[in-house]
Amino acid sequence: MPTVKLLDDHTASPEAKEVFDDIRSTRNTDYVNNAWRAQANNPAMLKRNWEKAKTIMGDTGEGSLDPITKEMIYLTVSIMNNCEYCIHSHTHFAREKGMTEKQYNEMLDIIGLATEGNRMMTAMHVPVDEKFQVKT
Amino acid sequence: MPTVKLLDDHTASPEAKEVFDDIRSTRNTDYVNNAWRAQANNPAMLKRNWEKAKTIMGDTGEGSLDPITKEMIYLTVSIMNNCEYCIHSHTHFAREKGMTEKQYNEMLDIIGLATEGNRMMTAMHVPVDEKFQVKT
Amino acid sequence: MPTVKLLDDHTASPEAKEVFDDIRSTRNTDYVNNAWRAQANNPAMLKRNWEKAKTIMGDTGEGSLDPITKEMIYLTVSIMNNCEYCIHSHTHFAREKGMTEKQYNEMLDIIGLATEGNRMMTAMHVPVDEKFQVKT
Amino acid sequence: MPTVKLLDDHTASPEAKEVFDDIRSTRNTDYVNNAWRAQANNPAMLKRNWEKAKTIMGDTGEGSLDPITKEMIYLTVSIMNNCEYCIHSHTHFAREKGMTEKQYNEMLDIIGLATEGNRMMTAMHVPVDEKFQVKT
Amino acid sequence: MPTVKLLDDHTASPEAKEVFDDIRSTRNTDYVNNAWRAQANNPAMLKRNWEKAKTIMGDTGEGSLDPITKEMIYLTVSIMNNCEYCIHSHTHFAREKGMTEKQYNEMLDIIGLATEGNRMMTAMHVPVDEKFQVKT
Amino acid sequence: MPTVKLLDDHTASPEAKEVFDDIRSTRNTDYVNNAWRAQANNPAMLKRNWEKAKTIMGDTGEGSLDPITKEMIYLTVSIMNNCEYCIHSHTHFAREKGMTEKQYNEMLDIIGLATEGNRMMTAMHVPVDEKFQVKT
Repeated sequence: MPTVKLLDDHTASPEAKEVFDDIRSTRNTDYVNNAWRAQANNPAMLKRNWEKAKTIMGDTGEGSLDPITKEMIYLTVSIMNNCEYCIHSHTHFAREKGMTEKQYNEMLDIIGLATEGNRMMTAMHVPVDEKFQVKT
Repeated sequence: MPTVKLLDDHTASPEAKEVFDDIRSTRNTDYVNNAWRAQANNPAMLKRNWEKAKTIMGDTGEGSLDPITKEMIYLTVSIMNNCEYCIHSHTHFAREKGMTEKQYNEMLDIIGLATEGNRMMTAMHVPVDEKFQVKT
Repeated sequence: MPTVKLLDDHTASPEAKEVFDDIRSTRNTDYVNNAWRAQANNPAMLKRNWEKAKTIMGDTGEGSLDPITKEMIYLTVSIMNNCEYCIHSHTHFAREKGMTEKQYNEMLDIIGLATEGNRMMTAMHVPVDEKFQVKT
Repeated sequence: MPTVKLLDDHTASPEAKEVFDDIRSTRNTDYVNNAWRAQANNPAMLKRNWEKAKTIMGDTGEGSLDPITKEMIYLTVSIMNNCEYCIHSHTHFAREKGMTEKQYNEMLDIIGLATEGNRMMTAMHVPVDEKFQVKT
Repeated sequence: MPTVKLLDDHTASPEAKEVFDDIRSTRNTDYVNNAWRAQANNPAMLKRNWEKAKTIMGDTGEGSLDPITKEMIYLTVSIMNNCEYCIHSHTHFAREKGMTEKQYNEMLDIIGLATEGNRMMTAMHVPVDEKFQVKT
Repeated sequence: MPTVKLLDDHTASPEAKEVFDDIRSTRNTDYVNNAWRAQANNPAMLKRNWEKAKTIMGDTGEGSLDPITKEMIYLTVSIMNNCEYCIHSHTHFAREKGMTEKQYNEMLDIIGLATEGNRMMTAMHVPVDEKFQVKT
């Protein structure tokens, strides 16, 4: 039970419909998932967020982060934000792009290690070592 | 101003001192950073967390995640938890292990994209598409 | 499946029943929603939180914040805390008090903008400009 | 001690310099605050986030949210995210745009009320009343 | 650099001054800490939050939670919320009321264990066992 | 719909099966709850987290924290992390170990008080009183 209607090709505005079509052709699929159908209630948001996602998550082919690493970072953020929708969709996308179960488990291990370590440092308010401070 | 004393070789217990020595030999350095000196007040915690960190963050050489990716996942968690100590130390470690500024920027781009997307899905309580649900 | 029973007029204590009655007469409705029925297990909490809500969210008629703005701030907090109950109830209350879909979308835009900006500032630990510091 | 250099007109790239100039002319000031100087290390992010901020926080003159309400929503998000930089800068911006101390106090009251209420609903996992569910 | 003035006996309103005096007599001290001096800018909030704190954190002498346990729960919340002020003040209060370093370490151990376990359950979206569901 | 299979005695690896058996004998029950069945997909994580839980949450009989207090701290963390699974399981465990409804209500009162107080201190960025700073 979302707080807004999930729009489709018939109920979305022409600007939103155009974004739906770009999602379809970019991803080479007929399927537009609920994330975009919800945002279609605010066509300017839909367009802005889709363009950003396309640019940032796309395979830039420029030697920086590979698609699996990108998805794991996205998934890590979603787990930390406790976003049910995003956990499911990006676990799916990461696997679809080739994340192995070994990589998934290792990612979970790091999340567990880091989140516990973070809390301990915060609880004891440990001061940052001088050597970790960037000289600017 | 931490809430506990930062122990050193002279003030730490023998069990804690042993962990300090393992940190030094594993990392090939004389330096034991504040994170461990604070946890030395609880030697069992110190040992448990160091062993875990050594296993999980170490270069396993087994073809799963590489050291830079591991550090970026750790850093992403630390940013999401708003842990000042961990943000500084793991930005340092990631760069030390070879993270380029281009990779750093791309990681930040994904964190920004994901954290905004997460909030929108949560705000509108968007239901998970059936196709994203794992068949178990 | 709540962790406590949702009490009603028959199962609540006399002190809790009194609060239920005040909710009904203040809001001019017969309906007491689940938030209060759950808190009725702790009548002192129920009374304290209802009095606080009545004072703070009520239309004070004194020229400060209007009821729609109040509800949008409440809803923003609920979205940031990822509170499913509160997101649904306060999206409902905000609309009931007159929040338009345009205002709702604009609120979501700001939440998205701010939450991403917040993370970037935290990730890079950007120092506060002197001009933003309050002189006290 | 940020994790990146805070760039200025001399060290920023031409694309970033162009954004600095647009900030200056849009805000009618010579001052470019640290938030933008940090993001200048990633000119594409700088441009994207500035354009978004300009569009969303600008006075659209279209009868939706007024500038003070917008700033209070931004500030509320920043408080919930515990972003020190953003709390200081947006408390400043909100006051600069006319937020009174009475409005500020009322906003804080609502944040306190909501964040406590959110936790109680989450702790007891209170189910959403049917009447709060949007019919879609 | 707080966002508001920290008021004292001379600058606070009479209502706020009255609360300061009650803090002094209840705690048997001359010292009013910054938490209350900041809230004195909103005397109604100051009074409400002080009364609540006095009731909830006071030694009720009724056989429920003892003062050290209460402080440890307060401190745990503060650590999870990453509230620097509250971490320092309530670590102080807990120790003042008799929390031993062994208890402090054990509390930190549990926080570390729980926060990691929480994330793993959230990451894998593990369903609640039927036996853990309250029959209502 | 978890993101991984919930393994059982037939589908778990021998290492995971061994942990299941230790859970059964330690807790004197036949029941292995879903938390462990999910982690069984990563046997090293399962073993590490079970050993840690057994050590930290076990009744050490050494005069530090009692089992009910431990469970209340675990539950408090879970509520702050908004972990649905952990809220249900540890509310169950705390009650099973003897937490009374009066203690439960008092714990909720403190969580409410603290989480609101935390936000107010963060919102106004109140500086830590010198007397709360640990001399190290």
